[in-house]
Order: sequence, then C-alpha cells, then structure tokens
Amino acid sequence: MNVLLTNDDGVFSDGINELAVFLKDYYDVVVVAPDRERSAVGHAITMHKPLRIKKIKDDDRLKIFYANGTPSDCVKLGIDVVMDKKPDIIISGINDGFNLGTDVLYSGTVSAAMEGAINGYPSVAISLEAESKLSDKAMLYIRKLIDNVARNGLPKNCLLNVNIPNVSDEFNGIKITKLGQRNYTENFTKRIDPRGRDYYWLAGKVLENANDEDSDIIAVKNGFISITPIQLDLTMYSFIDNLKNWDMSI
Amino acid sequence: MNVLLTNDDGVFSDGINELAVFLKDYYDVVVVAPDRERSAVGHAITMHKPLRIKKIKDDDRLKIFYANGTPSDCVKLGIDVVMDKKPDIIISGINDGFNLGTDVLYSGTVSAAMEGAINGYPSVAISLEAESKLSDKAMLYIRKLIDNVARNGLPKNCLLNVNIPNVSDEFNGIKITKLGQRNYTENFTKRIDPRGRDYYWLAGKVLENANDEDSDIIAVKNGFISITPIQLDLTMYSFIDNLKNWDMSI
Repeated sequence: MNVLLTNDDGVFSDGINELAVFLKDYYDVVVVAPDRERSAVGHAITMHKPLRIKKIKDDDRLKIFYANGTPSDCVKLGIDVVMDKKPDIIISGINDGFNLGTDVLYSGTVSAAMEGAINGYPSVAISLEAESKLSDKAMLYIRKLIDNVARNGLPKNCLLNVNIPNVSDEFNGIKITKLGQRNYTENFTKRIDPRGRDYYWLAGKVLENANDEDSDIIAVKNGFISITPIQLDLTMYSFIDNLKNWDMSI
Repeated sequence: MNVLLTNDDGVFSDGINELAVFLKDYYDVVVVAPDRERSAVGHAITMHKPLRIKKIKDDDRLKIFYANGTPSDCVKLGIDVVMDKKPDIIISGINDGFNLGTDVLYSGTVSAAMEGAINGYPSVAISLEAESKLSDKAMLYIRKLIDNVARNGLPKNCLLNVNIPNVSDEFNGIKITKLGQRNYTENFTKRIDPRGRDYYWLAGKVLENANDEDSDIIAVKNGFISITPIQLDLTMYSFIDNLKNWDMSI
C-alpha cells in the first residue's frame, strides 16, 4: 500500500518523522511536506510563485521530499509530480497540537487532507495534543485506522479528522464525534514599537463554549481518541427553502 | 447601519472601492482590507508576525484602512481594533473572479465571510465574473440582499456566498443554489530555470463536472446571480453511524 504523508509543521518536525518511520514497516511511504512551518495557513495554495521540490531521503520503503509550498501544494505535488504510483491513502500529520471544532477551518493539517479528498483519495488528518509524545498505543490505533480506511473506503468528498489526547497508554478508546464549537475572545494584544508606532499580535483566549458529549472537544477532554468525519460540501441545505422566500425584487 | 467591508484582492482593487462608494450613500462603511493581493490564501491567519493598520481615508460615511494581514486577519482587526461600533453586516468583496463550488475552500473572499460568521456577525461574500464590470443593476441586487440580511438575519454559523455573472443588465434574476463540483486536471507545468533546475507552476484546467441545475456553477452559466448558504459545521453526520461500526480494537 502506498501512503502519501504531509503536514503543516514542516518536513523536519518530530510528528511527521516519527509517523513515517513507524509506517514504513507496513507500507511504502512517500513524504512531501513544507520546507518550514506552515501552521494556520488554512487551505492556501501557491499560484503566484514557482514551486521547487527537493529529495532528502531515498530508502526502499521511505522517500522524503520537501517543497517551498503550503500543505495543500505538497499534496498536489505528491500526487501529480513526485509519486510514481498513485497513493492508496493520504495522511496529514501528526500535527503538534489539536485541530478541534471550529479550528479545523484554519488548519493547514486538515486542509491538506481536504486537498486529498478533493482529488478523490481517502484522506486522514491526525493531530496530537500540544507538547506531548506519541505513545506506542496511539501508533497502533493509527495503523488500525489506516487498515480500516483501506478496507472500508470513505464516502466521496469525505475525510477523517483524528485528535489524540496526551494520556500516554491510558486511552479510554476511540470516539466517533462531531465537530464542537470553539470561539476566541480578546483577539489582539496591542504593543508599541521602538519608533512609537502601534502593532498588534493575534492572541486570543479560548472561550469554553458549552459543547455536547458527542463533540470532538469533549471526547479528547475525557481521554478518548476522537475521529470526526468531515465533508467538503459546505452548502447549508436546511436554509435553502427559507432563502427562496426572501423578497429579492428590485 | 454599520458595514464592515473587506476582500482578498487588496485595498486598492476596483471591486471593493466601487462597492464602498456605492454603499456609503446608504450605510456607514468601514473598509479594512489587505495591503496587497491575497488570493487563494484560504482561511489563513497571521500568528507569527505583528500586524499593522494604516488609515487612508476618513470621510463621514466611509473610512478606509489597510493591514499587512490576510482577509481573515482584516475581519478580526475590523471587529476588535478598528470599529467603534460593532458591524451590523460584514461583506467580503467584490472579488474579481467567481468563487464557485469546491473553489470556496481555497477562497480568501469566502474565508473572510466565514471569519465574520465565526464571530457571530451576518456575513456575505460577493464575487463577480473575472474581467467584467459591475452593472448598476447588480449593485441594486446587492443592496436588496443587504437589506434582506438586516431584516431577516441569518442562521447561526451560516454565511451567504454570492456570484454575479457578466451579463451587464440582462440578469435572469436570482437563484438560490447549492455548491457545485469543480475539479482540476493537469495541475502543474514543469519548467527549467537558467541554472538548469526544475520548478513547477500551479496551473490546472477546470474539469467540467456534470453539475446539477440547482448548483451555483450552472446558475451563473445561465445568467443568474447565485446565492448559496454556506455552513461552518463541516461534520459529515450521515457517515457517523457507519464509522461507529468499524472494528477499531487493537
């Protein structure tokens, strides 16, 4: 089985390298990842400058490339330029830090998996609680999930978003979840530079919304690995009939 | 009524300035837009460098600011830093070029409206067919839409995505639509630089998928202004029960 691996923390981050080394014992792994950190780039793609690719490892079961693009660029490059065979699965991660609830809209990790799904490949985004270490048990769950995706497939225009809490080997198991709600308050910190001019840092404290038991946010809080199916179709079908009744005559 | 206006083509582009000048006859308009083009940035936000804001117009009904951030940054800055009163509506556009179907996932224009919705404000993204001129009639439709949004509100976590075809004043009217499917083929063009090294341009030809009559792609093709309700919740609820049946024991 051919696995295409990417991330948004960059090709030299721990998460992607640990996962690559683990997976190459079971699958043929090709890494195509950004040359540097590209967090919070959302689903950005690079249209206005040329992209370059560099190979830095060429083993039998593990090849590693980096590119000067975004996570989504790397997925496109992996499929169209780098890989001889098409991938059987595309994995984005392991991200250093959760991608939960509303935050998936900002996430380069999740967007890379979206790019995989747009191109018709089974795709999975994997994120680990910040500043924690991936346990052996978490690795086994990831492998089990990959085997399930290979065997069962995923619906068209669907990807999986996986979040792993920092509970070493004491997981309470897996939970299939919906996306929770996460909002921020106090978005900016204002400072004054040495020349007396204002500038702003995006800060933002998490507002703990009331979230349902079956949300990803509550699942990881309770020590479960959260798996959320994500769809590419953003249409709010439930509001279409209501909109049709608006008076739009001019 | 207070309108916050942003875009991804940059503060000096025609689309946003024409809209601002039109809207200031009816509303109090504050523009906070990127200092340069930020197309295809998706829902990127700027976490790792400071943001700066500059005021370039300070009329009674129209104030214009630019910032060195993404469209989503500009929305956050507009709400939290620039505006004295909170906006009654947030408008992103008018973008030079459609944002249809799957492409909304890449769009800075749509992501700015998503950011507005995340923050709880009624938000609308507006895009115009590339290289065309906004007609007076299109302006009247936009004003009618804003009045409808103000009067009727929008559901929580919902925004509107509007696309206007280049048919001058001969619109066939408005169509409420779902997002269509748009895929690309031949993603990259390979070239060789003067030093003999490969590089790649993201190119991509639109693959004309078969799209339904009620999709945004077909609506604009048939000369209608398309209005699609977009939701922030990406959960694919229909696949949750199926996923729960996967054997995830390790």
